[in-house]
Amino acid sequence: MTTTDPTPATGAERTGAAPIPCPSVPAPDILRCASMELIVTDLKASRDFYVDLLGLVVTEEDENAIYLRTFEEFIHHNLILRQGPAPAVAAFSYRVRTPEDVDRAEAFFQELGCRTERRRDGFVRGVGDSVRVEDPLGFPCEFFHEVEHVERLAWRYELYGAGALVRLDHFNQVTPDVPRACRYMESLGFRITEDISDADGVEYAAWMRRKPTVHDTAMTGGSGPRMHHVAFATHEKHNIIYLCDKMGALRLSDRIERGPGRHGVSNAFYLYVLDPDGHRIEIYTQDYYTGDPDNPTVHWDVHDNQRRDWWGNPVVPSWYTEASTVLDLDGNPRQVADREEPSEMAVTIGADGFSYTREDDEDGRYRGEAAKGFKLGAQL
Amino acid sequence: MTTTDPTPATGAERTGAAPIPCPSVPAPDILRCASMELIVTDLKASRDFYVDLLGLVVTEEDENAIYLRTFEEFIHHNLILRQGPAPAVAAFSYRVRTPEDVDRAEAFFQELGCRTERRRDGFVRGVGDSVRVEDPLGFPCEFFHEVEHVERLAWRYELYGAGALVRLDHFNQVTPDVPRACRYMESLGFRITEDISDADGVEYAAWMRRKPTVHDTAMTGGSGPRMHHVAFATHEKHNIIYLCDKMGALRLSDRIERGPGRHGVSNAFYLYVLDPDGHRIEIYTQDYYTGDPDNPTVHWDVHDNQRRDWWGNPVVPSWYTEASTVLDLDGNPRQVADREEPSEMAVTIGADGFSYTREDDEDGRYRGEAAKGFKLGAQL
Amino acid sequence: MTTTDPTPATGAERTGAAPIPCPSVPAPDILRCASMELIVTDLKASRDFYVDLLGLVVTEEDENAIYLRTFEEFIHHNLILRQGPAPAVAAFSYRVRTPEDVDRAEAFFQELGCRTERRRDGFVRGVGDSVRVEDPLGFPCEFFHEVEHVERLAWRYELYGAGALVRLDHFNQVTPDVPRACRYMESLGFRITEDISDADGVEYAAWMRRKPTVHDTAMTGGSGPRMHHVAFATHEKHNIIYLCDKMGALRLSDRIERGPGRHGVSNAFYLYVLDPDGHRIEIYTQDYYTGDPDNPTVHWDVHDNQRRDWWGNPVVPSWYTEASTVLDLDGNPRQVADREEPSEMAVTIGADGFSYTREDDEDGRYRGEAAKGFKLGAQL
Amino acid sequence: MTTTDPTPATGAERTGAAPIPCPSVPAPDILRCASMELIVTDLKASRDFYVDLLGLVVTEEDENAIYLRTFEEFIHHNLILRQGPAPAVAAFSYRVRTPEDVDRAEAFFQELGCRTERRRDGFVRGVGDSVRVEDPLGFPCEFFHEVEHVERLAWRYELYGAGALVRLDHFNQVTPDVPRACRYMESLGFRITEDISDADGVEYAAWMRRKPTVHDTAMTGGSGPRMHHVAFATHEKHNIIYLCDKMGALRLSDRIERGPGRHGVSNAFYLYVLDPDGHRIEIYTQDYYTGDPDNPTVHWDVHDNQRRDWWGNPVVPSWYTEASTVLDLDGNPRQVADREEPSEMAVTIGADGFSYTREDDEDGRYRGEAAKGFKLGAQL
Repeated sequence: MTTTDPTPATGAERTGAAPIPCPSVPAPDILRCASMELIVTDLKASRDFYVDLLGLVVTEEDENAIYLRTFEEFIHHNLILRQGPAPAVAAFSYRVRTPEDVDRAEAFFQELGCRTERRRDGFVRGVGDSVRVEDPLGFPCEFFHEVEHVERLAWRYELYGAGALVRLDHFNQVTPDVPRACRYMESLGFRITEDISDADGVEYAAWMRRKPTVHDTAMTGGSGPRMHHVAFATHEKHNIIYLCDKMGALRLSDRIERGPGRHGVSNAFYLYVLDPDGHRIEIYTQDYYTGDPDNPTVHWDVHDNQRRDWWGNPVVPSWYTEASTVLDLDGNPRQVADREEPSEMAVTIGADGFSYTREDDEDGRYRGEAAKGFKLGAQL
Repeated sequence: MTTTDPTPATGAERTGAAPIPCPSVPAPDILRCASMELIVTDLKASRDFYVDLLGLVVTEEDENAIYLRTFEEFIHHNLILRQGPAPAVAAFSYRVRTPEDVDRAEAFFQELGCRTERRRDGFVRGVGDSVRVEDPLGFPCEFFHEVEHVERLAWRYELYGAGALVRLDHFNQVTPDVPRACRYMESLGFRITEDISDADGVEYAAWMRRKPTVHDTAMTGGSGPRMHHVAFATHEKHNIIYLCDKMGALRLSDRIERGPGRHGVSNAFYLYVLDPDGHRIEIYTQDYYTGDPDNPTVHWDVHDNQRRDWWGNPVVPSWYTEASTVLDLDGNPRQVADREEPSEMAVTIGADGFSYTREDDEDGRYRGEAAKGFKLGAQL
Repeated sequence: MTTTDPTPATGAERTGAAPIPCPSVPAPDILRCASMELIVTDLKASRDFYVDLLGLVVTEEDENAIYLRTFEEFIHHNLILRQGPAPAVAAFSYRVRTPEDVDRAEAFFQELGCRTERRRDGFVRGVGDSVRVEDPLGFPCEFFHEVEHVERLAWRYELYGAGALVRLDHFNQVTPDVPRACRYMESLGFRITEDISDADGVEYAAWMRRKPTVHDTAMTGGSGPRMHHVAFATHEKHNIIYLCDKMGALRLSDRIERGPGRHGVSNAFYLYVLDPDGHRIEIYTQDYYTGDPDNPTVHWDVHDNQRRDWWGNPVVPSWYTEASTVLDLDGNPRQVADREEPSEMAVTIGADGFSYTREDDEDGRYRGEAAKGFKLGAQL
Repeated sequence: MTTTDPTPATGAERTGAAPIPCPSVPAPDILRCASMELIVTDLKASRDFYVDLLGLVVTEEDENAIYLRTFEEFIHHNLILRQGPAPAVAAFSYRVRTPEDVDRAEAFFQELGCRTERRRDGFVRGVGDSVRVEDPLGFPCEFFHEVEHVERLAWRYELYGAGALVRLDHFNQVTPDVPRACRYMESLGFRITEDISDADGVEYAAWMRRKPTVHDTAMTGGSGPRMHHVAFATHEKHNIIYLCDKMGALRLSDRIERGPGRHGVSNAFYLYVLDPDGHRIEIYTQDYYTGDPDNPTVHWDVHDNQRRDWWGNPVVPSWYTEASTVLDLDGNPRQVADREEPSEMAVTIGADGFSYTREDDEDGRYRGEAAKGFKLGAQL
């Protein structure tokens, strides 16, 4: 782990894909990631998961869709569950600062040659004038400003469960070429806060933000475009532990995919769970302020075994390989392109992988079977 | 998980070893597990681990031994680290109610034909009249009442670290024949609170207590006699999480063997770490009161994947296979006998193992790759 | 704060009341405080308080009574709410080790000349053979062993609220003559763990236990017999804070009487709330193990401003003056006798009171208005 | 408690003081409150308080000054302690987005006719080009961009204490005319997030932010200019509770002025402590995101007894009346002007005060002495 001044992410663009040009028109002023629209195949089962298990608050619902929000939110929703034929993501939705920023978003993506669709009355309930785009990486993104205000339930403790989710924190997207994606996201106004790379300059993942947290979204190297996860924040770590305990009590422990643990990247406490369709949800708490323009970028060596779990607990392979399909603006699944560069899983786990706990550990301070500097090997 | 009235543990004695007779003399009135004497090979390295990392309090020390206690303790020590040639356990030490109970302990083990040694001035500093025995299972046990009182540091918050250990909670011992061990421990006055068995009546592990917690010690089936771990309690879960964070910061994450997690058995929150010699230490918090004579015994199916981790996180093989050598009263390592019955690891992990999250799960509530009802498979 | 070997509480009996003789028959072997029977005047309002607000679990209920238990309990109930004409306490109920201990309790109190009533089928649902007595201090006490087992909900996290109460911890009783009460309770098998007294030997309060926590009950000096409070335990401090937050959200903050805070006595984290009838409930967590026979007794100076709140926050006068009426075995309110010795409130608060933060503080380390060594004065 | 769209704070300017004009030049783009410079009279005693007790990290120090930072900070310092003849505040320091914003700050205050002083090498160590101003309210403010980067210790858990302070969160300033102050702060780019007022339109306090938390500073009505407090954030509530426990252990409980508790305003968990000179420090955690331009403003009725403590615990008078002197740019104490409008303390506490727990409470749900809808009365 090293830090640098906030220069662009260190990896070079290596794949055959042409760089994404930087538009001449100004980028929209994005406030924050605001909502995701998920396609689920059994709305009742998903309601059990998101409302009864995770405790998200229903703003409104009908037979086809449920609009959910977190306890500290004042806009209409942070998550839409929509009944559909196959699990997918219909929109990564960002809020912009002004109504005019919707115009800017439309112009920005039109200059990029992306398909865009503008609806003055919005695509979903509770949101007004919006533009949806198929972005250069193939993700369906939405930009809006007008939104229905609802009660911020922050003080309504009588409604809180023991694992209350208080904010939408971030998205995480899978894309084959991380440096290419970063350049594009930087042109859209995002800043890199942390990344994972190797000594050869291969970039495996990068975290980027608008609001001053570690991220509003991250680009994870892999076959894409796919949605890796969407993350909600709790106030404290015990809230996350409670969700694990509750999943055990409901005999759903096999839906806990990874964690709880402490991330190296972001320094946050985390948990990954899988919804009934296999969409991955992160529960997350306590990263740090990143709002200064010279906020140091944190670089992690892909071989550092504490980068993804500070305690060295193994990342399960499914976490690397599985992700959700994303849709185009017609609602059809996007084709995915494979990553050409090395995969983080391959270079760190298994016969050809390599990880360390203490780089250049020569001191022999610790003995015994488990002292190989890397825990996962002992489990395989 | 089922509960029964507090009958003896369900497994039958099956091995060739003769049952241990129940002495005709009264058993000593044991108050609680009180201390363990560990042999360590590098006293300085061990001090770094137990004092600087874990934050135990030094009562006294010299060049050969360090006497440590927890923050709520008022007797001289809960752990002795003694320099020696090879890692081992020299004593599992129990406090008894009265001075006469030391006599009773001596008579009890003499009737069993065990080797005993009585020292009126104690074997270690801070403890008076004591008897040490080689118990019928081959463990070196100590019984004492007289002890030097020291300051109970419960109110000395200025000395607490963020992961303060406040009590010695329990021992855990590896022995080949769990039912045989349970019969003997019951004759010594212990009561079974929980166990793990299978439909064929094989007993894999049993927890037993004197003080009204889930255990003062547990018998874990395996090659024995060996010491599996010794456990210290914190007040809250975040104290345990902090110790993980600190081990990450010190680049010692490879010494986190398992956890943190929630146990099924005991319902406690736990962490297992390894000291510089490979002795296993558990950090533990929040089990439940068991002091009523009809406290229900909790029985866990060995195939229940939530029995050892309520969240279904895998038990690493080293946790099943590794344990510390124990010494006889001359300080020589005890030979270990292998377990003849099936091992918990073999029946639950790997090619021939079998575990479930939901017994007889036919409902198909959850789809997708990770929905196999058992997480470990996905990692192998 | 000083500690001594576990000698009897330090205060002398000074009041005119004759000492309570020590019976010649053996005392019953009391396991623990087990339940309280409260008379409430509006069962629906009380249900809102204990079930909806505090989250206690209903074992059974009808139009006249509600039987409640905590999440880790396996006996039928820890609290009975019974509709009645005026707020009162009908029974302080203790569980004894064996059925024969009910006989012993009956004989013990008969030798003391106390009124007793035996019911082989119990006084309340879920409990069998019991004896109720009017004890020498005037309290209605119940002793039972037979009890219906119900599900221990410890693992049922899907039922836990954010402030889950997991155990009944203790009672607290108001009585005029604390030393006299202590002598009697010691004859019944209780041991003193902590007390508050002054340099003149006046005893203001004493804590005493059967199970190895700081107390099963406490004797608080004042007009009595009256019931000061009954306490339930949570796992962690944040559970207690949540209950405060919830009471704020329900606009019931005026029912938070005192706290949350850290006790000096017991070292536990606490909160006092008032039910709709004014019965005082404590929520409590994390005291320490006291089970050794030589557990040091902790003595607090009544003038030490940290004895009742370790952070020096003031004790509200109502906490000293208000308490619940107790009933005799006919259900009639007991007359109360006034305390003849000085009251803790009078000697510590107000014009004639005296408290210190630092005894003999001469060092002048801290300046300013609030540095008088005692916070309350600044508020009057 | 009601919410409105983010209109200006509701109170009108009523005092004789002329409104502060809105400059024609652009305001500097302020990132966040960044540091405070405190004058202390005994640097050693202050070091004991801020370093040994509160656990702030020393970036550098000499015989005259100590530069301190929090665990997640990467700029040189968040607090300067400087030896001086009398307790005071020398600077409220804000970081601006670019070097040019220092020029803008200088021009902004020059147009307001304020005294300014520019130093290209900074006024303090670790900070470059800065301007200090005597702002229109009489506060000494500093604006800088250039700053020395130091290690962000977020991952250095081995250095964390149990009460680790991770961020500077906000300032709080006392000024006679809150609406006048708000208008000025809005012209400087701040936004109001919450306020306290009454039905007559009197404004008692207002919270305002640049970074998207509830505040970077607040204006509290009273004799001013004075500094009310400076606040540092912890990750979790137990960190704050630990600081209380530690102050109890050090027999400094009389330096806990108020709390811990839950604020109504901001919804944060809080504690106020007093340093050796009487400077007030808040420890604070878990307010909410306010970064959207239409973030609803929360209005609190001054008579709502939960506005300053959600649990209704009383605000001690010293908290209302005491505050720190501020200096002019020559280092001389500023004269204070009295508030002409009603004081929050007078209208809510004591003989003429009025507060409620439940507005228009007619339902008589709760009985008894403490049920008067307002706790403080019972203590006076």
